[in-house]
Amino acid sequence: MPDARPFVSLATDFGAAYTAICAGVVSTIAPDANVLVLSDEIAPYAVAEGAMLLRQALPYLPIGVHVGIVDPGVGTSRRPVAVETGRGDVLVGPDNGLLVPAAGELGGAVRARCLEDPAYRLPSVSTTFHGRDVFSPAAAHLALGVDMARLGPAVAPADLLPLDVPAPVVRDGALTAAVLYADRFGSLILHADEDDLVGALGPLAYGTPLELSGVADSGTDGGATVGSGTGSGANVGVTFEETFGSVDAGEPLMWIDSSGQLGLAVNQGSAAERFGLGSGSTVTVRTAGTGRRGVLAD
Amino acid sequence: MPDARPFVSLATDFGAAYTAICAGVVSTIAPDANVLVLSDEIAPYAVAEGAMLLRQALPYLPIGVHVGIVDPGVGTSRRPVAVETGRGDVLVGPDNGLLVPAAGELGGAVRARCLEDPAYRLPSVSTTFHGRDVFSPAAAHLALGVDMARLGPAVAPADLLPLDVPAPVVRDGALTAAVLYADRFGSLILHADEDDLVGALGPLAYGTPLELSGVADSGTDGGATVGSGTGSGANVGVTFEETFGSVDAGEPLMWIDSSGQLGLAVNQGSAAERFGLGSGSTVTVRTAGTGRRGVLAD
Amino acid sequence: MPDARPFVSLATDFGAAYTAICAGVVSTIAPDANVLVLSDEIAPYAVAEGAMLLRQALPYLPIGVHVGIVDPGVGTSRRPVAVETGRGDVLVGPDNGLLVPAAGELGGAVRARCLEDPAYRLPSVSTTFHGRDVFSPAAAHLALGVDMARLGPAVAPADLLPLDVPAPVVRDGALTAAVLYADRFGSLILHADEDDLVGALGPLAYGTPLELSGVADSGTDGGATVGSGTGSGANVGVTFEETFGSVDAGEPLMWIDSSGQLGLAVNQGSAAERFGLGSGSTVTVRTAGTGRRGVLAD
Repeated sequence: MPDARPFVSLATDFGAAYTAICAGVVSTIAPDANVLVLSDEIAPYAVAEGAMLLRQALPYLPIGVHVGIVDPGVGTSRRPVAVETGRGDVLVGPDNGLLVPAAGELGGAVRARCLEDPAYRLPSVSTTFHGRDVFSPAAAHLALGVDMARLGPAVAPADLLPLDVPAPVVRDGALTAAVLYADRFGSLILHADEDDLVGALGPLAYGTPLELSGVADSGTDGGATVGSGTGSGANVGVTFEETFGSVDAGEPLMWIDSSGQLGLAVNQGSAAERFGLGSGSTVTVRTAGTGRRGVLAD
Repeated sequence: MPDARPFVSLATDFGAAYTAICAGVVSTIAPDANVLVLSDEIAPYAVAEGAMLLRQALPYLPIGVHVGIVDPGVGTSRRPVAVETGRGDVLVGPDNGLLVPAAGELGGAVRARCLEDPAYRLPSVSTTFHGRDVFSPAAAHLALGVDMARLGPAVAPADLLPLDVPAPVVRDGALTAAVLYADRFGSLILHADEDDLVGALGPLAYGTPLELSGVADSGTDGGATVGSGTGSGANVGVTFEETFGSVDAGEPLMWIDSSGQLGLAVNQGSAAERFGLGSGSTVTVRTAGTGRRGVLAD
Repeated sequence: MPDARPFVSLATDFGAAYTAICAGVVSTIAPDANVLVLSDEIAPYAVAEGAMLLRQALPYLPIGVHVGIVDPGVGTSRRPVAVETGRGDVLVGPDNGLLVPAAGELGGAVRARCLEDPAYRLPSVSTTFHGRDVFSPAAAHLALGVDMARLGPAVAPADLLPLDVPAPVVRDGALTAAVLYADRFGSLILHADEDDLVGALGPLAYGTPLELSGVADSGTDGGATVGSGTGSGANVGVTFEETFGSVDAGEPLMWIDSSGQLGLAVNQGSAAERFGLGSGSTVTVRTAGTGRRGVLAD
């Protein structure tokens, strides 16, 4: 991999200082590496958010060694792994699903190794900071050109654990998708892409009205109109748009984000706050006017 | 521009991850560039805050390519531009006033171009992430030494949109200034500089008592004394000081910040919280004892 | 110090932008330096937190010039210093105790200088931003290889001000320690290390129940059991563990963190919120069942 100046990225839920310590370990071992902190502010323990960030970001970073570390608990048991991608990157992190979606975007996982050889760890390995003691040294040695086969025993790519998030449910006329995370603007990124949306609702022109069921709208700005209710809980109306600016400030919209994921946002506002949704929530989308529309009791 | 290792800075309201994606795009195209994230935490949509940050920071950064991206709305229509400064920098960002004050500090805008040539964009340009798809690639190519004339049609520097913030009002004995932003300590930076202050109030010795009108003081620490009221709403007394440490902890002060802007702060406290002020607020400052002083009804 | 590419780190309470300005000053003077922002988010004015961060982090960073800047007040009077360590680093920052614990971890303070020579400051020095005008230029010149003796008069290492935090009190059967800071997960780092704990309580097996006195437990998740009361205020029971994962989610624990400090945490939760503790608080730890155990009224 390294021809000139190797590239190493770091994405963690550690905050600035602990992530910078990892960067320092990389620079100590591989002084010429160009080290980029991709994120030090993934929500704590939010594996799905981290996985989507890596999937979205890594295709835009140089081919290199990319470290991703988010664990559902500190010091819990799981394998530390390195995963080579079809593009030529090596992804380094826990075997908990975090790296798998990104590997899929980078040509797939070609081979993988468990990070076991102490020669590529710090001399003293703590129980609570594998980012510093295991993952960062491994990444640095890989950036120096060490073959990943030397880091530990082989792991079959098919045996890497998948990301533990419900798959989108594509039915005729309805798409149900989990909320992966809210970005810092409060826009909600769903675990569904444009294909899922079209598979469920057919091709959608920009401006098409949609209906979200099971979602409470706390907004008072008139942006969301209460759709036809379904008995328990009113529905929320939004439109499908190409861009935030297509609706007025304060208006909600659904759109395909820059990495191809379906999202729910409020122009210049926070969809997370307005609709009370976050990681773990589920949203069902229909074309407005389908389904229960016309039921008189509503 | 590039003689050894070109310098590229990034300042956005994107948060860490999206800004780091931009850094990754720059490093992919220009692997030798020294990329500094100047800020990834400008308040969302806060063009004035971003403009003041760039104006304050860029004179202290190496001559290079400086990307600034804050839009009042995502995906709204405005020209992407590159602006060459008298010092030799190229500023890259939206034509919405964000870059103009910084250009003024760097010797003025010498020439400008609209970023239109697809050869200097990513192959696929999204509608919502021009930072990644338009601005970062342009910056990287400029850092590689591409002449900005190749990026698109000329824009007359005089036609660049100015920053949309009310100018300070300098009257005899009173200065009215908009609050540009609150820094993370809650200190308020005003859209007025030392010249404006002296123009309105004359030369001020450190320790001079001042009076702010139309400001509510929620403080209970005794730091702010209620000045002579003006009928509706009490005034707040502060002193003009060289440095925070000139007043006791919890006491308010006005001072000239390290970039020459007038500020309102509370030593070891938050002026934003105490006085309920923020971006968009307006403050009027008088020398204490002038103006309405002596009106008996007060 | 510099053989290939000098390394400079920055740790401040300035936030992203002002810290990046410091990085820009370093890169302007020393364009080849590898500049790492170790942290820009130390809590404002939190000298002890900053000191512990530097102590914890710097042993893992390359030998280099490490700038640490946290002042209890902006613009207050204290000496700016550079401190050479036994390992070969130079620490740059205020003489207020911030640098002293880190120097101790890096082989001790070998010699020190006061940063007085204007040749190694920016041409114009503000009263409020010594990070930019004094510390960063000094660090850059040191990274370029300037001998620290040229920066100003000698300071005896023994005359450097110590960190102003109460020392741990080790008694037979009880350890009293100050809370240094809460990390971003809400885990509390105490000013005591494993030796202090063993000195007070003897060798502890993992799983040993401990008792914290004078601590309120707001938890409702059953994680903390109310121990034997001491009359005023109930005690809180925790266990001493090797790793967070040794207790269930929501359960509290004490552990030795990756830098050897004693900590109090809640697995996948915030000990700071649950126990209402933070910097400045004090905690006393006993082995559960000692002390007041057996008092019938409980």
